[in-house]
Amino acid sequence: MRVFKEIQPLRAYLKQIRASAKSIGFVPTMGALHSGHLSLIQASKKDNPITVSSIYVNPAQFNNPKDLAKYPRTLAEDLAMLENEGCEVVFAPSNEEMYATTPTLRFDFGGLDQILEGQYRPGHFSGVALVVAKLFNIVQPQVAYFGQKDFQQVKIIERLVEELKFDLHLRCMPIVREPDGLAMSSRNKRLNTEERKQAPLIYQSLVQTQQRLQQGQSMSQIRNDIAHQMAQAGIRLEYLELVETQNLSQLDHVVPKSVLLVAAYVGEVRLIDNLMLE
Amino acid sequence: MRVFKEIQPLRAYLKQIRASAKSIGFVPTMGALHSGHLSLIQASKKDNPITVSSIYVNPAQFNNPKDLAKYPRTLAEDLAMLENEGCEVVFAPSNEEMYATTPTLRFDFGGLDQILEGQYRPGHFSGVALVVAKLFNIVQPQVAYFGQKDFQQVKIIERLVEELKFDLHLRCMPIVREPDGLAMSSRNKRLNTEERKQAPLIYQSLVQTQQRLQQGQSMSQIRNDIAHQMAQAGIRLEYLELVETQNLSQLDHVVPKSVLLVAAYVGEVRLIDNLMLE
Repeated sequence: MRVFKEIQPLRAYLKQIRASAKSIGFVPTMGALHSGHLSLIQASKKDNPITVSSIYVNPAQFNNPKDLAKYPRTLAEDLAMLENEGCEVVFAPSNEEMYATTPTLRFDFGGLDQILEGQYRPGHFSGVALVVAKLFNIVQPQVAYFGQKDFQQVKIIERLVEELKFDLHLRCMPIVREPDGLAMSSRNKRLNTEERKQAPLIYQSLVQTQQRLQQGQSMSQIRNDIAHQMAQAGIRLEYLELVETQNLSQLDHVVPKSVLLVAAYVGEVRLIDNLMLE
Repeated sequence: MRVFKEIQPLRAYLKQIRASAKSIGFVPTMGALHSGHLSLIQASKKDNPITVSSIYVNPAQFNNPKDLAKYPRTLAEDLAMLENEGCEVVFAPSNEEMYATTPTLRFDFGGLDQILEGQYRPGHFSGVALVVAKLFNIVQPQVAYFGQKDFQQVKIIERLVEELKFDLHLRCMPIVREPDGLAMSSRNKRLNTEERKQAPLIYQSLVQTQQRLQQGQSMSQIRNDIAHQMAQAGIRLEYLELVETQNLSQLDHVVPKSVLLVAAYVGEVRLIDNLMLE
């Protein structure tokens, strides 16, 4: 496994690779890897002769400096896990390498970036789009893999690829869960023992919401109950929304392509999850 | 010369080309070609074994629908001129090909896009960045050529390339002028005989401003006089500014890297020009 910290040597190496390899698969990450990330690596390995992964905690997508400071960083373990999965190339740049000049460019996705996560994390999706565009231009993959856990992020990146005509395919892979249902997330490492015990309530609330919607209950009634249940477990519900999967516009009842999106604070740790409804 | 109207066949063709050609030079245009454009083709021909040019009047960069409607369109002549210069590949897409979905993405360059041209043409540079990013991702050139006449556009594209890490070099080529000094522009075709006679005053005003700055006169005094001279010739000055060449911040006096930027209406036709000062 080759590890690069700088853009130019990576580009030179991939240029050679590209001459013979039929396709390059790309798995961008912020490190602190878990089985969710590894499922993306496995998918890429299956589809492409060469898999490139990046490990970079992108400051531009953090609206909360505390969240950025506390984001888990486990580079040595991450590299061992990637090597173990057979990942061929890793790009782990510094901030100076990724942002040689102070960023001035911001993206506006005409509303999609302002709702849900965007409402609670102003500027988040502009920062995501900026770093993903950079990484796509650095790695120039044929296929890029993202996890469905960050559902709205996937939608934003779909728009980015379509509107800027990036020459690649996106693949969105299913959420990987702990045995108790908690969606895998790097932020789970920040939960203390008590918080970890309560955290599965987030996923359970999605399942409960699905069942109650099937029984004909309204989102506002369900949301109130869930917020109350969570509060009793020390979890603060930020949003619980039923939306259609394309523009994420709010729904009152389940339609053929709907998804439940949830965000909640377990202690100081903000977690998100989602559930597709058929 | 190969002419493509669709993205996928162009990509397939350039993929073959790229396997053997050392570099692809790219000259994006909005057609209505003149010697200024041809100087870019010539520069690209000198630098690269393959030159790709695009002809596309990008609606997203026109704030004024009338300006868009009246923008000269001369595809047959353009193709003849490009063939004559030895351009190898032309991309002339439809709006449907470039904007398969309604564009929702907008770029914000943190101020640089709001001043000068941006002040008078709201949204212009977001539209420019959008189409240039698309074209870069479609053509994937090693070198891209732009004319200095659109000075602020060049600065915006420099930022775009730096901040999104496009894997290419930009070359900015000097303004090509008519014998009477008028900067070549596709919009010159819209001038009637009388307007065409008056239009060189725009360049003359830049030269006059340079001389008067050297004599120690203030920009505000010079600007008043120039606006008056122009008005007498039926030209309406929109702006005349002395700025430094990096962030285009306004200057009171000439510094080592300064440029004079001007925009004026000759009848209904809006023209721009600039002059680097050493």
